[in-house]
Amino acid sequence: MTTTPRLRMSPDSRREQLLELGVRLFATRTLEEISIDLLAEEAGISRGLLYHYFGNKQDFHEAVVGRAIEKLIEVTGPVEEEDLMTRMSISLGNYVDYVTANHTAYVSIIRAASSGNVTMREIYDNALNALIDRIWESSTPEELASVGMPDTPAMRLMARGWAALVEKVVLAWFDDDRGLSRDELVGTLALSLAGIANSMPE
Amino acid sequence: MTTTPRLRMSPDSRREQLLELGVRLFATRTLEEISIDLLAEEAGISRGLLYHYFGNKQDFHEAVVGRAIEKLIEVTGPVEEEDLMTRMSISLGNYVDYVTANHTAYVSIIRAASSGNVTMREIYDNALNALIDRIWESSTPEELASVGMPDTPAMRLMARGWAALVEKVVLAWFDDDRGLSRDELVGTLALSLAGIANSMPE
Repeated sequence: MTTTPRLRMSPDSRREQLLELGVRLFATRTLEEISIDLLAEEAGISRGLLYHYFGNKQDFHEAVVGRAIEKLIEVTGPVEEEDLMTRMSISLGNYVDYVTANHTAYVSIIRAASSGNVTMREIYDNALNALIDRIWESSTPEELASVGMPDTPAMRLMARGWAALVEKVVLAWFDDDRGLSRDELVGTLALSLAGIANSMPE
Repeated sequence: MTTTPRLRMSPDSRREQLLELGVRLFATRTLEEISIDLLAEEAGISRGLLYHYFGNKQDFHEAVVGRAIEKLIEVTGPVEEEDLMTRMSISLGNYVDYVTANHTAYVSIIRAASSGNVTMREIYDNALNALIDRIWESSTPEELASVGMPDTPAMRLMARGWAALVEKVVLAWFDDDRGLSRDELVGTLALSLAGIANSMPE
């Protein structure tokens, strides 16, 4: 047997590495199942050292959820495409694939965000708002007008509702696809935002 | 001072009366704030007697939430109107008014349903499904076809997402109306379901 020599790492990159491991473990586990003990065992380091990096269990969970959501924002990031609907379909497709690959973790994030935990709710709400805001930030006023999506407070309100629809539909589709392929699902979700926008008063 | 003589009531109507009081107290309080102690104080009876009717705190909370949701289903019930969109607007208007009048309780129900509590989630999911199913049950196939809402599993999936949109939008509108009147909100929500339906693959 050979052992890999331990590299001396800076505290920041060590914490970073542990956080990445936490997020990987989180993909197939609920938040409750991600304990300091489990992470210590997987990382092969002492619990004491982990507490040094993450303070307490709550701080550790917030760091893992925060990082998982950063990844979600990253994979659904704006793409270089001419057409607004094409950009939205690609981002939505990446979102569907993320939820599929990280299903347990994602359900757990939503539960944590919907519970009384204010910090988790803020992390999640800020992420959702960022996802939605990007639609407007990455589009020209002409593009937005062409699909009937002017940038008004009422429109952003409906878009926040649309995000709740997307979340609910994708999770339910994961459990039972109702005969919809991934691409049909993505196309329907992308079009539905324009359908909602067109329901608004002039 | 005169005292009203206590009427001897059957256990069922007594429990019923206590449950109604619980729901009234719940309208302006979170679930955590509705304790057996508070109910005992308000009803002027002993805690022991309340435990006799409701078992434990969890059972009591489930009974109160169950009853609050029955009321929600009742007030948003089908109405006698020719036109599907008119019926939906009236039901949605009643829903908006219910959420406005019972805001604290409603937020608390949603939190309880979104948390790890399986019973609460089932109560709430069943209620939402019942609300949605009524759209199809109270409409003729011709009516549904005229707004592009055929009764398919995929359509019901999207309608479930629309319910999540309605919930999110109405709660956010309550906090900040973004310049939308109640009637504009209701009209937009009603039309948005058809907009979503029209986004679906043929």
